[in-house]
Amino acid sequence: MIKVGVLGAKGKMGAQTCLAVEEADDCELVARLDQADELEELTKAGAQVVVDFTRPEVVMDNLEWCIEQGIHAVVGTTGFDESRLSTLRTWLEASPSTGVLIAPNFSIGAVLMMQFAAKAARYYESVEIIELHHPDKVDAPSGTARRTAELIAAARAEAGSGPIPDATTTSLDGARGADVEGIRVHGVRLRGLIAHQEVLFGDTGETLTIRHDSMARVSFMAGVLLGVRRISGTPGLTVGLEHFMDLD
Amino acid sequence: MIKVGVLGAKGKMGAQTCLAVEEADDCELVARLDQADELEELTKAGAQVVVDFTRPEVVMDNLEWCIEQGIHAVVGTTGFDESRLSTLRTWLEASPSTGVLIAPNFSIGAVLMMQFAAKAARYYESVEIIELHHPDKVDAPSGTARRTAELIAAARAEAGSGPIPDATTTSLDGARGADVEGIRVHGVRLRGLIAHQEVLFGDTGETLTIRHDSMARVSFMAGVLLGVRRISGTPGLTVGLEHFMDLD
Amino acid sequence: MIKVGVLGAKGKMGAQTCLAVEEADDCELVARLDQADELEELTKAGAQVVVDFTRPEVVMDNLEWCIEQGIHAVVGTTGFDESRLSTLRTWLEASPSTGVLIAPNFSIGAVLMMQFAAKAARYYESVEIIELHHPDKVDAPSGTARRTAELIAAARAEAGSGPIPDATTTSLDGARGADVEGIRVHGVRLRGLIAHQEVLFGDTGETLTIRHDSMARVSFMAGVLLGVRRISGTPGLTVGLEHFMDLD
Amino acid sequence: MIKVGVLGAKGKMGAQTCLAVEEADDCELVARLDQADELEELTKAGAQVVVDFTRPEVVMDNLEWCIEQGIHAVVGTTGFDESRLSTLRTWLEASPSTGVLIAPNFSIGAVLMMQFAAKAARYYESVEIIELHHPDKVDAPSGTARRTAELIAAARAEAGSGPIPDATTTSLDGARGADVEGIRVHGVRLRGLIAHQEVLFGDTGETLTIRHDSMARVSFMAGVLLGVRRISGTPGLTVGLEHFMDLD
Repeated sequence: MIKVGVLGAKGKMGAQTCLAVEEADDCELVARLDQADELEELTKAGAQVVVDFTRPEVVMDNLEWCIEQGIHAVVGTTGFDESRLSTLRTWLEASPSTGVLIAPNFSIGAVLMMQFAAKAARYYESVEIIELHHPDKVDAPSGTARRTAELIAAARAEAGSGPIPDATTTSLDGARGADVEGIRVHGVRLRGLIAHQEVLFGDTGETLTIRHDSMARVSFMAGVLLGVRRISGTPGLTVGLEHFMDLD
Repeated sequence: MIKVGVLGAKGKMGAQTCLAVEEADDCELVARLDQADELEELTKAGAQVVVDFTRPEVVMDNLEWCIEQGIHAVVGTTGFDESRLSTLRTWLEASPSTGVLIAPNFSIGAVLMMQFAAKAARYYESVEIIELHHPDKVDAPSGTARRTAELIAAARAEAGSGPIPDATTTSLDGARGADVEGIRVHGVRLRGLIAHQEVLFGDTGETLTIRHDSMARVSFMAGVLLGVRRISGTPGLTVGLEHFMDLD
Repeated sequence: MIKVGVLGAKGKMGAQTCLAVEEADDCELVARLDQADELEELTKAGAQVVVDFTRPEVVMDNLEWCIEQGIHAVVGTTGFDESRLSTLRTWLEASPSTGVLIAPNFSIGAVLMMQFAAKAARYYESVEIIELHHPDKVDAPSGTARRTAELIAAARAEAGSGPIPDATTTSLDGARGADVEGIRVHGVRLRGLIAHQEVLFGDTGETLTIRHDSMARVSFMAGVLLGVRRISGTPGLTVGLEHFMDLD
Repeated sequence: MIKVGVLGAKGKMGAQTCLAVEEADDCELVARLDQADELEELTKAGAQVVVDFTRPEVVMDNLEWCIEQGIHAVVGTTGFDESRLSTLRTWLEASPSTGVLIAPNFSIGAVLMMQFAAKAARYYESVEIIELHHPDKVDAPSGTARRTAELIAAARAEAGSGPIPDATTTSLDGARGADVEGIRVHGVRLRGLIAHQEVLFGDTGETLTIRHDSMARVSFMAGVLLGVRRISGTPGLTVGLEHFMDLD
């Protein structure tokens, strides 16, 4: 049994994580902490792994303390830039058997979509991305769509792919979508949708489409549990859930 | 047997029409004319219906002559504005048993998609259009997408629908597509595609999608033949193939 | 304000209906009844319309009483065969200003999909249906898929369409789906899905696809409210929500 | 420049290969042979690689001769069972610098779809396959769908996945598709389609869909050329184009 503590246990993702850990046969939820609670409860409860869904202002303090105690961490909190990652690496050098996973996306399906898209990229002359979300979303395109475009652009550059063909000369503003590193990205906002994305690849006589539909927050829990199960065997810093998946 | 003459018989659409007329059990191809030919060959051959796939510069002369002779016309040539339609109506008043069909789109599937979209429009809070074409297309969005957006906008206005919800505040240029009368339209260009369109409707808890895929010019022939079969029983001017379809 | 009573108010659909009526600007929820309650509460509360989501064993008694009182009824309860409909018609003759709507499906999107499919049917050589549901569903294909197939088969028969082409000679059992009145229907069961259906039409060089995705029970409420708003102006028996929609 | 000879040059795939080789900047078409021609023309012309799209009855003789001459071979001809592969391995041992690629499928998109499906399989509780083809196809399900199902079934077995959930108790014959090693496969036949396949994965709250659309035989040529370019650097027997793709 993996003894798990949850930080940010009253937030939406934290609460969902508590449920998921309780339901998992190989995990035991030993501590659920929120703002008012002391991190020492983790050691008292014997937590081996923490899951952190807190806020950018507190997550670094949480992680410094956990790494000192040798508690592994699976982190869904946002706000990690290169400087923060570098600090984490320094702390982890002093605690060489401890592992920390920083995961911008816990959706296994979204990770698979991005990894497959990166692998397919070199084989197709054309590629575009359509992301579709509920109309209450404030940003367009989505972070996942931008990240997918970056991965595809990098794979095309590495393979020496030429520019994507596009003969458009007459166009209404916006008709051809946004340009993210040379990849066209279209954002649809529609009542009834949650979070969806399609990556379309095309070449002479054929197309390949990879689509991910995410209908509920609960779908991230499989990724969180994958992190919890793998982190103790992966010392040091890992960025991205894809490194815990057998994709190669 | 309907005796059919084809004007513009050496063009792509004209040639395809000749083939389609020859293969139809209830039609007989009696004249195939192109630039160098005289319209009188139509009367010599006893043509009852002509199909015109010529050019905007010559189509009005063709139609004036045909209407005078009482030959019905099915017209796929572009360039008809209100002034030209008005002229046609005047000519047809003088030949009251003759029928002329001006069809901007002979694809039965595209016409169905547009008609269904117009009917569904009043029942959904959200709607967007995605059109997808080969990358050699020079305009975006496509004419069919613009026309669909106009029909949807008109149906929403008639039903008193409010504005489409969209909370986007941060956006890359173009991410939310083009705005055609308040409807967002996205144009995808991908090698391997021909001509495709998706209309997405959404409301709380459900979405409705109407998609048309056009893979070959031959798909327009069913619409041309529908026009040929119906035009003799429909005196006067008809604009749009939808009036020959039993959609109501 | 339309004064509405709900029968079966503690059931899933009934409870959802109570919420929807309360939120509607033009409706007032005046009575919520369940098994133990007396129908007389409806008259005491001045209910003009009832929505019945009860059970086949009690719905006829409910309706007989409501019709006698001149209360209009919108009915989602199942189990109406021709004999029951005939009884309803007799009762309604004695109360000529009262209206009853029996609706097998309150999903406006599903009704639109079926109506559009029936209208498109005559224009295509091929048609198949794919319905996709969660894996806890016990029947395959779904009732909506069967109903859609029946409507398409009837439209093809009326149009004199020939048999659907299929050259299959070697096949694994079940590979070509179920046969519903000559229409092939495929049932997919997948965790993560709720209730979805695609109707695919095809002819030389083109295809037309109509897809409905239903993600939540709340999506039926727009149809229930449409019924509530229209039923007082539609005396007699109406079977099917499509008769209250402006589809023609 | 790679000097290429084509065997079966008058067949559909052979003729397409001749065109593709001629258009490729790094290849030279030095011999096009069909039934009446002598294999010796290959050596006279200096062919380094042959592409074989002939027939099962002659392909083994072709390959024996080519291997003896040290000419590499890219083979799309069907009919290779374990016995034939074993014979090829023996012949290749005697010519250790020669390479032979046996490719059941030259569609890069289909290979990507199958490889991605195999990798995604372990992460999802549910999976089904829908293949869609023109109605003149005689077998159902398609060979690609069967192969995809086998790869998915093997990946699930390796990962220790349990049975796929399915509560169906009442069903029309065929509604739930064919069973290929525990995976449900549905075959749609529709005029207007060519060759298409969708693999649907589902788990709580999310689905992942991988779709390949093949519209023209020319789409296989990218795979043939990939084989031609890689085979001289890959001595011995290779079965499956995926081994020449950077998927890991």
